[in-house]
Amino acid sequence: MCRWLAYSGDPIPIAWLVLQPEHSLIDQSLHARLGATTTNGDGFGVGWYDGRSADPAVYRSVHPAWNDRNLRELTTHVSSPLFFAHIRASTGTAVQETNAHPFRHGRWLFMHNGLVRDFARVRRDLMLAIAPPLVAELEGSSDSELLFHLALTFGLEDDPVTALERMAGYVEDVGAAHGVQHPLQMSAAATDGTRIVAARYSSEGASRSLYFSTDARVIRARYPDDERLQALSDEARVVVSEPLGPRADAWNEVPEAHVGIVQPGQDELRPFTPRRGVAV
Amino acid sequence: MCRWLAYSGDPIPIAWLVLQPEHSLIDQSLHARLGATTTNGDGFGVGWYDGRSADPAVYRSVHPAWNDRNLRELTTHVSSPLFFAHIRASTGTAVQETNAHPFRHGRWLFMHNGLVRDFARVRRDLMLAIAPPLVAELEGSSDSELLFHLALTFGLEDDPVTALERMAGYVEDVGAAHGVQHPLQMSAAATDGTRIVAARYSSEGASRSLYFSTDARVIRARYPDDERLQALSDEARVVVSEPLGPRADAWNEVPEAHVGIVQPGQDELRPFTPRRGVAV
Amino acid sequence: MCRWLAYSGDPIPIAWLVLQPEHSLIDQSLHARLGATTTNGDGFGVGWYDGRSADPAVYRSVHPAWNDRNLRELTTHVSSPLFFAHIRASTGTAVQETNAHPFRHGRWLFMHNGLVRDFARVRRDLMLAIAPPLVAELEGSSDSELLFHLALTFGLEDDPVTALERMAGYVEDVGAAHGVQHPLQMSAAATDGTRIVAARYSSEGASRSLYFSTDARVIRARYPDDERLQALSDEARVVVSEPLGPRADAWNEVPEAHVGIVQPGQDELRPFTPRRGVAV
Amino acid sequence: MCRWLAYSGDPIPIAWLVLQPEHSLIDQSLHARLGATTTNGDGFGVGWYDGRSADPAVYRSVHPAWNDRNLRELTTHVSSPLFFAHIRASTGTAVQETNAHPFRHGRWLFMHNGLVRDFARVRRDLMLAIAPPLVAELEGSSDSELLFHLALTFGLEDDPVTALERMAGYVEDVGAAHGVQHPLQMSAAATDGTRIVAARYSSEGASRSLYFSTDARVIRARYPDDERLQALSDEARVVVSEPLGPRADAWNEVPEAHVGIVQPGQDELRPFTPRRGVAV
Repeated sequence: MCRWLAYSGDPIPIAWLVLQPEHSLIDQSLHARLGATTTNGDGFGVGWYDGRSADPAVYRSVHPAWNDRNLRELTTHVSSPLFFAHIRASTGTAVQETNAHPFRHGRWLFMHNGLVRDFARVRRDLMLAIAPPLVAELEGSSDSELLFHLALTFGLEDDPVTALERMAGYVEDVGAAHGVQHPLQMSAAATDGTRIVAARYSSEGASRSLYFSTDARVIRARYPDDERLQALSDEARVVVSEPLGPRADAWNEVPEAHVGIVQPGQDELRPFTPRRGVAV
Repeated sequence: MCRWLAYSGDPIPIAWLVLQPEHSLIDQSLHARLGATTTNGDGFGVGWYDGRSADPAVYRSVHPAWNDRNLRELTTHVSSPLFFAHIRASTGTAVQETNAHPFRHGRWLFMHNGLVRDFARVRRDLMLAIAPPLVAELEGSSDSELLFHLALTFGLEDDPVTALERMAGYVEDVGAAHGVQHPLQMSAAATDGTRIVAARYSSEGASRSLYFSTDARVIRARYPDDERLQALSDEARVVVSEPLGPRADAWNEVPEAHVGIVQPGQDELRPFTPRRGVAV
Repeated sequence: MCRWLAYSGDPIPIAWLVLQPEHSLIDQSLHARLGATTTNGDGFGVGWYDGRSADPAVYRSVHPAWNDRNLRELTTHVSSPLFFAHIRASTGTAVQETNAHPFRHGRWLFMHNGLVRDFARVRRDLMLAIAPPLVAELEGSSDSELLFHLALTFGLEDDPVTALERMAGYVEDVGAAHGVQHPLQMSAAATDGTRIVAARYSSEGASRSLYFSTDARVIRARYPDDERLQALSDEARVVVSEPLGPRADAWNEVPEAHVGIVQPGQDELRPFTPRRGVAV
Repeated sequence: MCRWLAYSGDPIPIAWLVLQPEHSLIDQSLHARLGATTTNGDGFGVGWYDGRSADPAVYRSVHPAWNDRNLRELTTHVSSPLFFAHIRASTGTAVQETNAHPFRHGRWLFMHNGLVRDFARVRRDLMLAIAPPLVAELEGSSDSELLFHLALTFGLEDDPVTALERMAGYVEDVGAAHGVQHPLQMSAAATDGTRIVAARYSSEGASRSLYFSTDARVIRARYPDDERLQALSDEARVVVSEPLGPRADAWNEVPEAHVGIVQPGQDELRPFTPRRGVAV
């Protein structure tokens, strides 16, 4: 179980979302409310676009987010128009930077909350479907890293929603072949620095929570006294595992089996349907 | 806030107490019940006597105890007749090995749960009272390290109970001079490898919890089916911040402002009275 | 490039070989003489049998061996009749505990100095040959971990020399299929806690250095004043990447393409011949 | 022994100096040429001003600079008009972030290469001279942290050169009182984000090396084909423990017992004279 957030909008210090809200990601690392575990202390990561280079920067650590001083320094002093942040609760795999999210390939970032069930049994089959040049990039032992490289294999860079649907379908195909009842539990996000694709899906139809922020103009109008909220640009959007504070009207739940696309112009929300039987 | 345990008896694998009980120290690192914080994830330490050398070994880490694989390896494969184990929840000072307990000086170990209140204000005065050669040994920034070196200055190696009482009195003297209302909150243990001295005291008379195990012969008689309990020697004794499991009759609370001495022959439990006005 | 040592004999403190010799493994971590790099600061590991449990303990760290205090504590206070120690110089893969040696499976340990050439290209094919249940155990991204799991797949636990020869042959087969000129450079050791098998081999016939210690009785007779050497048992044997000190007559080089077997009774030294065309 | 560099000029990616030059700070962490040790693998730190906030950011790590991926990420993606970078070779004190340079107080940064001789003996007296509120900020165990806090006590924020001279004088006074022959060996730098003060001094008159870069206009004229050098602004200045590459004419040695001041307008170079007998 993990927690994550993604931001897109005018550049803001990363700390505005990671450190400072009442129920910030740091607070969630100690006291998550909606997740399977309350403590998310098995490493963390931040990935951000600096507005100059197309490739994102990634800072990952094995320490708990709440006691990592470098995280405070970095997020306070680095502003970004699009960033991912993730705190990890290992379900058994090693606590190492290469198992921390977000993962990166070229200009793409990926992060995930959830799991591939019976991973030890299906792991080899999942690896086999990854394109050989991408296999060489695997560095850790997590299911999430494999999900990302499967999605890349299935065309994430060209058509991200379809690639995520093929990835989910393939995991379900492999799981079914191994007799796994509910192979996939996932709330995942991917970005190329321009748009964010965030999917909520699980084989059992009871997915981990996922929220996106209300339109920034509405938020600003409702909270005229909150300086940080007033500074959000019209396009600003946040996607989170759980709300960052008590303002219920600031957040909308992503419906079960849906995918949201945060992008320049109109954002989108559509059904997410795994594509089975395609890749096997 | 921290949690700790101390064991004395026939050699047992350290894991028997640190990893395996239902509410082991590892479990307490995620879900402490009686402490000020539920999570104790800011490093840990184990100190043990190997039965050959008079000097103890110390293993300290900045990682949470629950995800440190080396801790599992070490405690499973090392047996010891006397060991200390400690998990840390920092109250603000840096998470670094030199702030992790137990601290060592020659053949002595020391660990602590609690705090010196308004430490930033009184820190310099506490340092000033430490014997100059001991100042050179300070490596971290914690109040606990200073408490240990004050106790050493006040004769811990010769008369541990008196030294701890002088240390507590000195902290209260310095606190009073700085207008601190309740200067000391402490449940601390020290050992030379032969006896364990464990004190529970706080200026406000509401000290952190501290328990010692019931006589091993009684325990064995009550739980004839528990293999590990049957293996405990007559002299075996455990002192803990909170009980390691649900067996209420296996644990006795150390009374407020008392000090217990676990030693060859008869153990002792006596009042603990800070010695004020001596060292200033 | 890495450095390693293996010991078998009467129990001795691990520090006797890892910390204390003039050109100890710690010294080699800063100033290796015979290797491709002088600095081996990308993590280290120690594996040891405790004489009670059949399964070895493993302590691995991402820190340089020279500044890891826990390594000093552990090796000073733990004695063992058979242990492996390894210091790592990464050739690019992540510095993480799961890439540190020795690797473990059940009662077996494995460590390695050398490399699989063009690893990124051949990695997937090497993984494909590993038995599916063993794939689930992979935790890192190193070539060495794959070599170990290939050897396990090829019967390491039953016939270690043949398994290592099949593993080497398979790596050469795969390398040849990918047009790699000299696929394998290896000086590796494996043990089950009873015997140590140490092989020196490279496709180009110019393998990394490997030495074994002269018969302990000869050593004791030659250096009557060296207390530690006098304490070595008749059966004591050390295998090392490079000698631990200036005594040339204490060390014999393992010949090119040979494997040594340290075991109860007579030790052995035989040619090492990769078995090609078997596993593909 | 350590190595460091300081930059002031138009904003550049930190990696331009830390990662990319032929004999970059990363290269110096493995192969320093002019220092007392060739390996500087006991942690590192970077401090930088982001151009928005007056307070600098600090990233410090216990890992060797050469294998820390976060350092590569950060320095590649963060640009700064003024930054410090430091790699550490411990002379015995713990490898922990709080012993890594640069140190920070408010808007000031400080870093140091050298040592206080017989530090264990004089440490307490050095601490005693530090202003009590600054004592509360001490977090590590290094001589360098004390030097910084002494300089702060002696007015670094108002008159940095005089404060450093008083600091050096005080260390020599205390050393003399303890019979230390050459109490101080120092090449140190401090900055408030506007000017950099870099002093080279040692009691024995044989100080660690220190260089500053030739006027950027001269450099650009001499190397018209070097893209990065052409991008340096007129005011750009680098101060380093040892030159970053083979261009001898790009570097000038700071003379023995001198202090350089890099600042808006004309830089300065003046004699550095410890002020003895003032503070005791």
